[in-house]
Amino acid sequence: MRKKYLLTPGPTPLPPEVCQAMSRPIIHHRTPQFQAILKEATEGLKYVLQTKNDVFILASSGTGAMEASVVNLLSFGDSAICVEAGKFGERWTEICRAYGINCEVIKVEWGKAVDPQEIRSRIKDAQSKIKAVFVTHCETSTGVVTDLEAIGKIVKDSEAVLVVDAISGLGAIPLLTDQWSCDVVVSGSQKGLMLPPGLGFISVSPKALKLVESASLPRYYFDLRKAKKALDKTDTPFTPAITLIIALNEALAMIKEDGLENVFLRHKKMAEATRKAVLALGLELFVPDAASNAVTAVKVPAGIDGEKLVKIMRDTYGVTIAGGQSELKGKVFRIAHMGYIEEFDIILCISCLEKVLNQLGFKFSLGAGIRVAEEEFLKK
Amino acid sequence: MRKKYLLTPGPTPLPPEVCQAMSRPIIHHRTPQFQAILKEATEGLKYVLQTKNDVFILASSGTGAMEASVVNLLSFGDSAICVEAGKFGERWTEICRAYGINCEVIKVEWGKAVDPQEIRSRIKDAQSKIKAVFVTHCETSTGVVTDLEAIGKIVKDSEAVLVVDAISGLGAIPLLTDQWSCDVVVSGSQKGLMLPPGLGFISVSPKALKLVESASLPRYYFDLRKAKKALDKTDTPFTPAITLIIALNEALAMIKEDGLENVFLRHKKMAEATRKAVLALGLELFVPDAASNAVTAVKVPAGIDGEKLVKIMRDTYGVTIAGGQSELKGKVFRIAHMGYIEEFDIILCISCLEKVLNQLGFKFSLGAGIRVAEEEFLKK
Repeated sequence: MRKKYLLTPGPTPLPPEVCQAMSRPIIHHRTPQFQAILKEATEGLKYVLQTKNDVFILASSGTGAMEASVVNLLSFGDSAICVEAGKFGERWTEICRAYGINCEVIKVEWGKAVDPQEIRSRIKDAQSKIKAVFVTHCETSTGVVTDLEAIGKIVKDSEAVLVVDAISGLGAIPLLTDQWSCDVVVSGSQKGLMLPPGLGFISVSPKALKLVESASLPRYYFDLRKAKKALDKTDTPFTPAITLIIALNEALAMIKEDGLENVFLRHKKMAEATRKAVLALGLELFVPDAASNAVTAVKVPAGIDGEKLVKIMRDTYGVTIAGGQSELKGKVFRIAHMGYIEEFDIILCISCLEKVLNQLGFKFSLGAGIRVAEEEFLKK
Repeated sequence: MRKKYLLTPGPTPLPPEVCQAMSRPIIHHRTPQFQAILKEATEGLKYVLQTKNDVFILASSGTGAMEASVVNLLSFGDSAICVEAGKFGERWTEICRAYGINCEVIKVEWGKAVDPQEIRSRIKDAQSKIKAVFVTHCETSTGVVTDLEAIGKIVKDSEAVLVVDAISGLGAIPLLTDQWSCDVVVSGSQKGLMLPPGLGFISVSPKALKLVESASLPRYYFDLRKAKKALDKTDTPFTPAITLIIALNEALAMIKEDGLENVFLRHKKMAEATRKAVLALGLELFVPDAASNAVTAVKVPAGIDGEKLVKIMRDTYGVTIAGGQSELKGKVFRIAHMGYIEEFDIILCISCLEKVLNQLGFKFSLGAGIRVAEEEFLKK
C-alpha cells in the first residue's frame, strides 16, 4: 500500500467531483442538453479569465491553443515579439518560426522576469511593424510570474496585440484579462483548473478579432473564424471533448463557490509556506523575485543528484514533484501548488522532501521545513 | 425517470470499464508509469489498425488528425485527389484548400461509393503529379463504405500515398492497413473505440514517413517529426490527454478479449438487423449498395418530419439517433451500431422508432421491425 500524491505543475490532482463527472454516461454534443453545458462552461471561463471577450474551448492541449493564437492573428512574414524567459517562452518563438513569422526575441535570463520597458523599446524600434507580443504569464519551467499589467499598458498603445500564455497561471494567480488589456489569453485544462489535460482555451478581444479576420496564415482545425461562427450558435466547429467539458463545469463550480479571490489567496498561502519551508531546510529558491504562486522552483543543493531526488520521492514514497526542464535539468526541482492543493498537501510534500534529502546525506535540521510551513498556515 | 440510450455515429456509448477508468486519480505523463500505459495503447492501436506502421496519439478530435495528415505529407502547391462522397469527404478538400493544396476533387453522389477506377484514371491523367489520395473509409454522413482494398492496389503503384479517414470505421468494420496499402490512416476515439471524443490517431507507413520529412507545409502542434522523435522514446511531444489514453487501454482490452474478427461480426449482425427492420417497416435505405456496418442511413418517408422524428425519440423517449447532415438534413435519419452496441440496443431503438413513427401517423404494421430484427438475431 502506497498512496500517491501529485504536486506537479500539470497535470494537477483532480477533485473527486471532477473524477465522478467524467465517469457519467456520455451525451451527444449536437443537442440542447450539451448546448446548455457548453454555455455554462464558456461563461465560467469568462469568470475565471475576468473577461467579456469571446472564449473558445478547443479539443487540444495548451500548445494547440498557443498555435491557434499564432495562426489566427498573423500572416506570413509578419513581425512579432516573443519573450523567452524559459522553456514555454521559447515555445512561442518555435511556433511563430514554424509559420514564417519574423520573431523579435527578447531573451531573459531563466529565473528572471522580463522588464516591461524592454518590450516598449522593442516595439518603438520596430516602428509599428510589431503585430503581436507573445508572453508567458507564469513560466512553468522557472516559476517566474510576468508583470502583465505593466506590459498590457505598453502594448495597448501600439498597433500590436498582447498574447498571453496563461496555461499554468489561470485559476492560480490573478489575471485580469480585460483590465490589463490582454488581447488574447490561451490556457489549458490540467493546471489551475483541476482537470485532466485535453482542453485548450483561448479568449480573444475585439482588437484581436479584427486580426483573426485579416490574418492569412493557413489553418483549419484551429480556425477561430469557424469557432466564432459556431460559438454564436452555442456550438463547436468540430466534435468537442464532451467529457472534459462536463468535468470543466464541475471544476468551475468549485472555483465559483470559493470565489476567485479566495482561490488566489489559497495559492499565495501554499506558495509562501513552500518557499519558507525550503529556505528553512537550507535550500535556495531559484526565483528570488517575481516568484509565481503557482509553482516553486528550488535549486538542487551541491552534492545532491536532483533527478534521483525526484525519482525516490515518486517511486519510493509516492510523492510526485517535477524536476528541471531543458537547461535546468538536474539543477532545480519544482513543487507545484496549483489547483486542488491545500495545506496538508504541502505538509506531506515537504515531509517527503525532508525524508529523501536526509537519506541522500544532505545536512539540515529534520522537521525544520514542516515547522515554518505550519507557522505560515497558522496565520490568518 | 427516463433512461437514456445513445445510438449516434459518434459519440457512442461508453462501457462502464471506460467510465470507471476515467474516474481514477490522474498520474503524471513524464513517468515510467505513464510510459507503460502509452506503450500498451500504441500497441493496441496497431492491433486494431492491423499495422506495423508507427501510430501516433494526438490530443485532438479526428479532424485534428486529418489536418495532421495533410500538413505532414504535403507542400504548398502540391496536387492531391480528394474523394467527396459526403460531408467528411468534403472535409478533406476543405483542409487541403486551407493549406494551398491543388485539389483534384472526385465528386460522388451522396449515398454511393467512389469507383476505384475513377481514382486510377485521375492519377494517370495527372501524370504522376498526385502526391496523396484522400478518401473516407466509412462516410458517416451517408453510411457508405469505401472499397479501400481496391483503391490501395491502385495507389500503391503510383507515387502517391493513400490517406484514409477511418474515424467512424475503426473498430467497427475491417480495415487491413498494411495488407490494403493504406499509407496513412487517421481515426478518432469516440466511435468504434468506445471512448469519449478528444483523441486523434494517425498511422504512417514508411512510404509516407519519407513525405513527412520532405513536406514543407507549416506545422507545430501536429508536427509528426516531433511526434516520431518522442514516440521513439515512448513519449509525446506535448502533454497528452492522459485520462483518455488510460481509458483507451480499457477499451482496447475489451476489443482484444472479444477478438477483432468477432467485433466485426457483431457490427455486421447489428447492421443487418437494423437494415432488415427498417425495410420491414416500409422504410427505404439511403444506401442500397456499399452500406457500412457502422451506421445505417434511412430515408425519411414522405409526409414525416425527419427532424421532429429524431427530436421526439431523443427528448420524449431518451433514444438519441442522428438526423441528416448538410444536404441530407431532414431527408434521412441515421442509426449507429458501432462500438458498445449489442442486439438489445438495436431492439429498443427499433421499438422507439416504431412508436414515434406510429405517433406521427406513418402507416405500418406495429412490431414488424422488431420481429425481423429478432429473426436476424436468432441466426447463428
